[in-house]
Amino acid sequence: MRKITQMRFELTKEFLEILRKKIAEQDLLWIKEHVFELHFADIAEILDKLSNEEAKHIYFQLDEEVQADVLMELEEDVRDRFLASLSSKEIADQLENLDSDDAADILGELSDKQIQEVISQMEDDEAAEDIVDLLSYDEDTAGGLMQKEFIQAKLNWPVNRCLVELRRQAEDVEKVYTIYVVDDFNKLVGVLSLKRLLFASPKTKIIDLYSDKNIISVKTSDDNEEVAKVMEKYDLVSVPVVDLQNKLVGRITLDDVVDVIKEEADKDFQLASGISERIESNFSVWRMTRARIPWLLIAMLGGTLGAQLISSFELGISKVPALAFFIPLITAMGGNVGVQSSAIVVQSLAKGNDQFGSILSKISKEALVGLVNGLILASLIYGIATVFENSTLGIVVSISLFVVIIFAAIFGTLIPLVLNHYKIDPALATGPFVTTLNDIVGLFIYFSVGMLLYHI
Amino acid sequence: MRKITQMRFELTKEFLEILRKKIAEQDLLWIKEHVFELHFADIAEILDKLSNEEAKHIYFQLDEEVQADVLMELEEDVRDRFLASLSSKEIADQLENLDSDDAADILGELSDKQIQEVISQMEDDEAAEDIVDLLSYDEDTAGGLMQKEFIQAKLNWPVNRCLVELRRQAEDVEKVYTIYVVDDFNKLVGVLSLKRLLFASPKTKIIDLYSDKNIISVKTSDDNEEVAKVMEKYDLVSVPVVDLQNKLVGRITLDDVVDVIKEEADKDFQLASGISERIESNFSVWRMTRARIPWLLIAMLGGTLGAQLISSFELGISKVPALAFFIPLITAMGGNVGVQSSAIVVQSLAKGNDQFGSILSKISKEALVGLVNGLILASLIYGIATVFENSTLGIVVSISLFVVIIFAAIFGTLIPLVLNHYKIDPALATGPFVTTLNDIVGLFIYFSVGMLLYHI
Repeated sequence: MRKITQMRFELTKEFLEILRKKIAEQDLLWIKEHVFELHFADIAEILDKLSNEEAKHIYFQLDEEVQADVLMELEEDVRDRFLASLSSKEIADQLENLDSDDAADILGELSDKQIQEVISQMEDDEAAEDIVDLLSYDEDTAGGLMQKEFIQAKLNWPVNRCLVELRRQAEDVEKVYTIYVVDDFNKLVGVLSLKRLLFASPKTKIIDLYSDKNIISVKTSDDNEEVAKVMEKYDLVSVPVVDLQNKLVGRITLDDVVDVIKEEADKDFQLASGISERIESNFSVWRMTRARIPWLLIAMLGGTLGAQLISSFELGISKVPALAFFIPLITAMGGNVGVQSSAIVVQSLAKGNDQFGSILSKISKEALVGLVNGLILASLIYGIATVFENSTLGIVVSISLFVVIIFAAIFGTLIPLVLNHYKIDPALATGPFVTTLNDIVGLFIYFSVGMLLYHI
Repeated sequence: MRKITQMRFELTKEFLEILRKKIAEQDLLWIKEHVFELHFADIAEILDKLSNEEAKHIYFQLDEEVQADVLMELEEDVRDRFLASLSSKEIADQLENLDSDDAADILGELSDKQIQEVISQMEDDEAAEDIVDLLSYDEDTAGGLMQKEFIQAKLNWPVNRCLVELRRQAEDVEKVYTIYVVDDFNKLVGVLSLKRLLFASPKTKIIDLYSDKNIISVKTSDDNEEVAKVMEKYDLVSVPVVDLQNKLVGRITLDDVVDVIKEEADKDFQLASGISERIESNFSVWRMTRARIPWLLIAMLGGTLGAQLISSFELGISKVPALAFFIPLITAMGGNVGVQSSAIVVQSLAKGNDQFGSILSKISKEALVGLVNGLILASLIYGIATVFENSTLGIVVSISLFVVIIFAAIFGTLIPLVLNHYKIDPALATGPFVTTLNDIVGLFIYFSVGMLLYHI
């Protein structure tokens, strides 16, 4: 028995340097011993860091099964680059070893012409057909997420026939969690756990073993987020996918949905931070610039409107220059309060908690929180501004801060709710959008109060 | 065969109203038919919306098995309220039907005295021992996340003995994904899939069936985020947990880790939005206020420093009041650029991409993006400010905006990297922290350039 190393692999700079040297020296023995024995996820991590040529050198020495696993674990841009250097025939060979959903994902990134070429080169017609079928679904739906590999049993099979059939089916299915039970028309009628099958007597019929209670399934047209919500809510490791006639057509496993959950969270975080496309830190400078400039333009437009607004109070500033001192304080507080409020609403909406809490109760609660925060902060700033300049400015800043905070709290709550109502991603609201609007309104309140109390 | 309804349950206001009436009328028949048949996650959703008394009425009519499932699906505050109304004996009864990790989670929320009372009331001594053992682990580690229910086989067992043993063990284990293989000292040596066991002949020994290659396990002391990263990287549905001597002590399933992933994403989003504690939209006004005020105080301190800084340029403002017009534009742009840059770094760090990209290369890339954005936006604002006032102001605003953008990009990249280096959550940086600092530095740059070019 081989020695068990329980240490997880950790990729170091030193390891990479040695590996590069060994590749250059064509020292296959060393590579076999130090790379081929690793977990496919670790091999992919290594290939991510190598040049295309170096990566190919290792990749094509791997077992075919491992190749497929490694390919799916590569970072997206590395994989794209890697595939671009392969012929249609070579890509077709790789696809044969992949699960249908992964194969479809990879094909989906190619041009229509290339897809046709690759498909025509595939030897396994059934696999090719599955992939083509999957390509017809929108990639953001359950249909685009599902795989064609799953295990099904018919209601009237006895356990021993079921075992024989499953052995045949299971060859294609990497991970078996649940057996789906269908009727003669291929309609999903229930599930059967492997555990139950394992401990049943051979003559028992599936109809007497399976469970038809509360079968949770998703439709091919359900969107990804819906699938993630269902799997989370019902604690599922895999979920069957049915078509409009309730016929079983695929399954989705939790590991694919974890990616959806992570991507969704990433997207929200980026939207809230003012980045409009999903980007990774290894993208090009140009792509990074493009993803950010829309928000910066909005912020600049807001700043220009703010300049316009302040200029209409020019008389006030020239008489009381101290009014200008607290401009950043007013805008910063309005922005922060607004972002806080909208963040709460965005998360609450993302969890699907929108059915019951009426809009009015949400807003009044946020307004109340704003009231408490406003009172505390306004009294503090009254003291600060009075010491700083005089009590008139103290009153102006504290009153307007109080109003701005309450207003920003209400506004920050309302905007994401309105966006959500019109089916726009509410995470947009947490970004520069709400801060920019709050800036302008805050400035207007501040200067209006100032002009009023200074009798200008 | 019962009619299969494939529609997922959706909780409506109308349903709740009828249910409340039926509970008041003690119409158990109606409740049985309309509630008891539902999935436990749906029942929990209903109980979340009922009063404690109403919820208890339904809860204690459910099957014991279903009770446990429903209890774990309740929202945290509803569950706390619910448990608070039960006696120690009643809580002990509920724990007996729960998985050990869930039972430990629930006990962990009680006082030490109550924990002792509940444990002493439990009838199943072995279960009680498991729970007490789990309570000794930090809740943010693999030990705190794992459950004691898992299936293990010894190396020298033949398949038929294995099946007998597994049948005994499997009674406690809700979901079987993988069988862990241990040696005579209980050390983890490999895994065996249920699929392989299912199709093996009865005399085969486990040692000839199992896989000892690349066994991924976590240690009890590994923290939650590490566990989530490992399960994601290696596409695992469950992971074995070992102690320092590599003895198998538990397992963690992906559904529990999905919660960790979601909580982590939520926490980052809230930190970035200036909310310091994890809060839910149904928390009290006071808790919500408390979670937000620290950031607002920081922002207010920043605003006060900003006021101080502008006041030192009072001469400039009284001579050229138009300088005040563009204060919000400068602070807004600095803030937005800083948040964008830090968001990218925070996400990149969260994915564990920090080993190779050197700090210097990250910063120079962000500076480059800032340069491009700065050039585009500065030329635009030159035009705007010139039309708005005059070309001197145009030059002042555009030059300072350009400097501010590049500075904010570098600053926004650096801060999260530094925080991460000192083991502080880098998501802090994306919040008011980076905006406040950028405000002050931005104002200083703007007014310095202004004074210089206006020769004040």
